Amino acid sequence: MTVVSVPSSAACALLRPMFEDVTVLVWDMQDDPPEGFERIEFMVPGHWPSENAHCWFTAMPELRVVQLLSAGVDHWIGHVPSGVTLCSARGVHGRATAELALAGLLAVLRDIPTYATQQRMGVWERHSGQGLDTKRILVIGAGDIGGRFASACELFGAETTLVARRPREGVRDITELATLVPDHEVVMLAVPMTASTVGLINAEFLAAMPDGSVLVNVARGPIVDTDALVAELFTRRLRAFLDVMDPEPLPANHPLWSAPNLLLTPHVGGFTGRHDPTGWHARAEDLVTAQLRRYLNGRELMNVVAIESGY
Amino acid sequence: MTVVSVPSSAACALLRPMFEDVTVLVWDMQDDPPEGFERIEFMVPGHWPSENAHCWFTAMPELRVVQLLSAGVDHWIGHVPSGVTLCSARGVHGRATAELALAGLLAVLRDIPTYATQQRMGVWERHSGQGLDTKRILVIGAGDIGGRFASACELFGAETTLVARRPREGVRDITELATLVPDHEVVMLAVPMTASTVGLINAEFLAAMPDGSVLVNVARGPIVDTDALVAELFTRRLRAFLDVMDPEPLPANHPLWSAPNLLLTPHVGGFTGRHDPTGWHARAEDLVTAQLRRYLNGRELMNVVAIESGY
Repeated sequence: MTVVSVPSSAACALLRPMFEDVTVLVWDMQDDPPEGFERIEFMVPGHWPSENAHCWFTAMPELRVVQLLSAGVDHWIGHVPSGVTLCSARGVHGRATAELALAGLLAVLRDIPTYATQQRMGVWERHSGQGLDTKRILVIGAGDIGGRFASACELFGAETTLVARRPREGVRDITELATLVPDHEVVMLAVPMTASTVGLINAEFLAAMPDGSVLVNVARGPIVDTDALVAELFTRRLRAFLDVMDPEPLPANHPLWSAPNLLLTPHVGGFTGRHDPTGWHARAEDLVTAQLRRYLNGRELMNVVAIESGY
Repeated sequence: MTVVSVPSSAACALLRPMFEDVTVLVWDMQDDPPEGFERIEFMVPGHWPSENAHCWFTAMPELRVVQLLSAGVDHWIGHVPSGVTLCSARGVHGRATAELALAGLLAVLRDIPTYATQQRMGVWERHSGQGLDTKRILVIGAGDIGGRFASACELFGAETTLVARRPREGVRDITELATLVPDHEVVMLAVPMTASTVGLINAEFLAAMPDGSVLVNVARGPIVDTDALVAELFTRRLRAFLDVMDPEPLPANHPLWSAPNLLLTPHVGGFTGRHDPTGWHARAEDLVTAQLRRYLNGRELMNVVAIESGY
């Protein structure tokens, strides 16, 4: 009997009736493993596994598939044993993450945090906000997240420029970045964290952004040089919306907490639930069940990140 | 020489070089009129004229056109003398207003005001928000604002139902409203204020909205029965984003100020400016100049609200 693990009892309750010949264990990889974890073949870790969770892999000889619930895979690369297929949740969070990027950008442009404060104080005071109309927006990363964000901005009159490593119709080459930056009032990051994107948004890049422009990061914190951004925010020359930062969680007393011109959310980009009691994201549910069916039937898996060896 | 009035000196500076045979006066209709106002033929009042501003019309025999900068015309209907054409800024604010509706809805669903408070206190604490994915959204009013809002929500996976007085392909009849409400988790208002829409969202309507659903009003305050909404908010059964309310400005100590589950902005829907020093919205600029050219050349005007008599 195939042993599968999922990160919550709600997810377990959902899968059990769908897969009768499967044993479903509950393990989020944050707590210690459940009894019988050594026999897990197909595992779905939780969103926030403990730092050394991957050490358990050495005691799991049957493990064949690690299906993540995140689009980002940087915490797992190099930690999945040879012979185990790592699969991302690419596409599952695209909508929610693009949506949070837009929510954060609009909140910054319209100054919603200030209005929320005025509301608490009972103050009716209007000030002119900014809209997307005629804004020039540079979207770095032309995948699902970047593309969807750009389409939404265009609906409201923004002009968008997408850049990526592989230039194509409608997507500029990332090598042109330096010349593009000064012509855009918003920079939105939607690239994976790789050796070439860590520190991409450094002091020089930020200095090239026009006065008053907005940086939006829903990708990964280390893509931005935090110190350089903090410096620009404290002079109030730039504005930012950050759902991700470096480090995370942001320690108490970190200068970002008190930086002006900044809206910050604690890495909740893909973190939306349906109204349903399972709390599972509908698309994650669909992905995990489809993927498990494929695995049990010996079919090709989706969203494979790195196959260390075949089946 | 044709005499024209505009509400700011910035607008005046913009128009003067474009129309050499025109005298441009500055008058926002909030302050007393400038010298020579009796000869104004074409006027553009400011966004917030004084309550009895229309009384000045009786001393303006040359007046032919009142070009508003707002999409809503309810403050002006019945106050424009016979022989004067009233024109709205329909379309000018559509993008900005639809955009604020989306900004407010996303802020409520993701609980951005709470994260802004946590940020001020230096607290890193995640809670699951909601996204648009699979949300069923009822949009009342299928004009520019409602349509654009619906398209944006659909981009992020929402299912939208548009209703209007004139049902058509993709737009349901407003008489079906009562049966539609219970199946939707968001209700967004984008109808003009008329005798048939005042009080449309009454206690009965609100009671039919499912638990936890969100009301978004960027149209006009009196479309919603404020007391009934306050009651629903205080039980925390419903949530709301209001850019407009009844009364406006909201008086100190009004219960809406302290209502839970509410995000409130002080009627800033169309209130966005470009980065340019004039502070005029680019599209308002385009509309006023195009309209004035049409008037001077004797051509048909755009966005005519009510022609009391022909030219």
